[in-house]
Amino acid sequence: VNAEIIAIGTELLLGQIANTNAQTISQMLPEVGANVYFHTVVGDNLARIHDVLEIARGRSDVIVITGGLGPTPDDLTREAVAASLGVGLERDEELAEGIRAVFTRLGREMPEDNLRQSDLPVGATPIPQEGTAPGFVIDAGGVTIFALPGVPWEMVAMMRKTVLPELRRRAGSGVILSRQVVVVGLGESATHQAIADIVASQTNPTIAFLAGGGEVRVRMTAAGPDAADANALIDPLEKSLRERLGDFAIPGDHASVADALIQMLIEGGLTVAAAESLTGGAIAQRLTAEAGASAYFKGSLVTYSTQSKHTVAHVPWEVLDGPGAVSEEAAASLAEAAAREFDADLGLGATGVAGPNEQEGKPVGTVFVAGHFRGRTEVRHVRAYGDRDHIRRIAMTSSCDLGRRLLQGL
Amino acid sequence: VNAEIIAIGTELLLGQIANTNAQTISQMLPEVGANVYFHTVVGDNLARIHDVLEIARGRSDVIVITGGLGPTPDDLTREAVAASLGVGLERDEELAEGIRAVFTRLGREMPEDNLRQSDLPVGATPIPQEGTAPGFVIDAGGVTIFALPGVPWEMVAMMRKTVLPELRRRAGSGVILSRQVVVVGLGESATHQAIADIVASQTNPTIAFLAGGGEVRVRMTAAGPDAADANALIDPLEKSLRERLGDFAIPGDHASVADALIQMLIEGGLTVAAAESLTGGAIAQRLTAEAGASAYFKGSLVTYSTQSKHTVAHVPWEVLDGPGAVSEEAAASLAEAAAREFDADLGLGATGVAGPNEQEGKPVGTVFVAGHFRGRTEVRHVRAYGDRDHIRRIAMTSSCDLGRRLLQGL
Repeated sequence: VNAEIIAIGTELLLGQIANTNAQTISQMLPEVGANVYFHTVVGDNLARIHDVLEIARGRSDVIVITGGLGPTPDDLTREAVAASLGVGLERDEELAEGIRAVFTRLGREMPEDNLRQSDLPVGATPIPQEGTAPGFVIDAGGVTIFALPGVPWEMVAMMRKTVLPELRRRAGSGVILSRQVVVVGLGESATHQAIADIVASQTNPTIAFLAGGGEVRVRMTAAGPDAADANALIDPLEKSLRERLGDFAIPGDHASVADALIQMLIEGGLTVAAAESLTGGAIAQRLTAEAGASAYFKGSLVTYSTQSKHTVAHVPWEVLDGPGAVSEEAAASLAEAAAREFDADLGLGATGVAGPNEQEGKPVGTVFVAGHFRGRTEVRHVRAYGDRDHIRRIAMTSSCDLGRRLLQGL
Repeated sequence: VNAEIIAIGTELLLGQIANTNAQTISQMLPEVGANVYFHTVVGDNLARIHDVLEIARGRSDVIVITGGLGPTPDDLTREAVAASLGVGLERDEELAEGIRAVFTRLGREMPEDNLRQSDLPVGATPIPQEGTAPGFVIDAGGVTIFALPGVPWEMVAMMRKTVLPELRRRAGSGVILSRQVVVVGLGESATHQAIADIVASQTNPTIAFLAGGGEVRVRMTAAGPDAADANALIDPLEKSLRERLGDFAIPGDHASVADALIQMLIEGGLTVAAAESLTGGAIAQRLTAEAGASAYFKGSLVTYSTQSKHTVAHVPWEVLDGPGAVSEEAAASLAEAAAREFDADLGLGATGVAGPNEQEGKPVGTVFVAGHFRGRTEVRHVRAYGDRDHIRRIAMTSSCDLGRRLLQGL
């Protein structure tokens, strides 16, 4: 099944938001054996949405549309799909009732506009609303079009409840599976060079590289009649790649080094805390991103000012006035403070210069990360690069990697 | 000028990353009067990249490609553009020299693959590398194609140094300007209902809505021969919108309520600190996202565990054992701790239930935010909705809004 994703909304073309919906849907469709070949973004314009639909209908089996199902006049997905199929719109009374019920439950008056959301192209099957916007699915001459709201959590719920089960039912068999080897401490070119001959000889699984934030992800993707077959194709390839990449490759199938650290913490029944400067809470954000974080994450001291490194994290003035707030010594002291103040098994510390200006005479990209575990403190000096955000991500990744290595005995 | 953006990379179609490059480029192009009408994402496949280029050449004046310029065999942008134009590739010796120099400077051996990056379509003008990947610009029968690397900071540098100046030079005149009114505490439908008649009568400026994370952004976009004209079109519209939206609208032209708070802090020479639970460092992350944050941001206590709310932020056990860690009293105590421990003018506190499970018998979405400023502590009970990430964003937004209101005397 060849699938593509169309996101509708002028806010995407103005750059007000990133197209995270396409990312989320792309992660989900391969679960049911659908290959995503294109993403398109188009604004709230009937003619252009129509043109994009025509192109998509000519090259894909399944089209997932997201956005343009809201109550305001610039929400035009219903009209555009109807026009593309040459049919009219028809009010679905059951949906209309459901929309009225949502407002009654919230004790709010329903703006009359909202009933537009129950007008569907003739022949469409409604997908019941999760928030207030219903979706729909319709057959367009052998091409299936799913139209989902742009609100991420509503879209995800409809993907799980309707789109994936429907596609799985049709596919019957055939899956695409991916697995990653995450590499830390080796650049993208060097990683590729180390495994170039393996990559060149691969067709199924295929291999893709993704570098950023201090990690290179080597992704192996296999297609097979079922999961066991796809896994059997990936297993020997992963083994060869790991032999070449050695200690630079994180053990296990993780999307990132942070995920590897989290799994080790959970399996070991261990807790972690941080004390961070340049990362500004990024370590805490990352380690609390998933549900269940309270089992292993205790907290973080985000000591952004030099003074607070002393008053809150108790980094000695001899360190701050001597080697400085950006130093091996400060990083070590932060990691120890994290473990001590939060009574955590593992303490992580990060300090450095995110830019755009140098600090204490240290250049932008200077990063020190530290870990403290069972009486042992280790520090790494990392030379990060790129813009402010990228330097912060590298610092976060590096501190998680050091934490992971400490847990496994370095 | 009609522009479109093509992002190349299978990692985007697999959902490994969001297409933030398209977002960034979309924010930049209107500065030089270019309208972005489409984003497309296509994988590392020569035939499909070729097809996408043909479609784009048929509907746009300017095409900005990002990605596929790396050193590995799956980097195919150079080949695809050459094929679309019916020309070959030619090595640019100056670029090759530059690539060798980068590796010499880093003291690393250059993988031979990397020289592929200096092979450009015949007729292209090189754009010098920022990292290791050069870009190029080429005329395709009246359509200008810019090819930039996928690494965000390299892409941004080339946009600033080459793409925008070149387009500005050609455009001569004509700008598109946008301004936003940010609304907090009113839903998207209710916001639209309040201003529906104004929206319906608008053509230039146009009005777009963007809701999420506890904010509704009402974006006014005007086209005019120069900035003064475009602003003169927006001014009376903004005035009418603000009259309708009243106190729900944040004063000033900001992208978000966090930006409004930051500007007030800077203008007042004030500092802020946070003590956060469910947000897991999101308040700190947001307030340190921009360069210069150290002027106003002191730090944050991320007290994720209940115990650490007492040991680190000194929330009394009577509160934690009584009303609980998710309570008005806990939020107030956190805001006061933030101001006190970091010696900050404004203290922000946030606690709540991000989900997926209820806590202390309080349902998912229960959020209490607090602010402490000049001896005064204020708390707000917010009913947040959506998934875990959305609830955390609403909590962050709500705490910034309360901080902003405290600074202006509520």
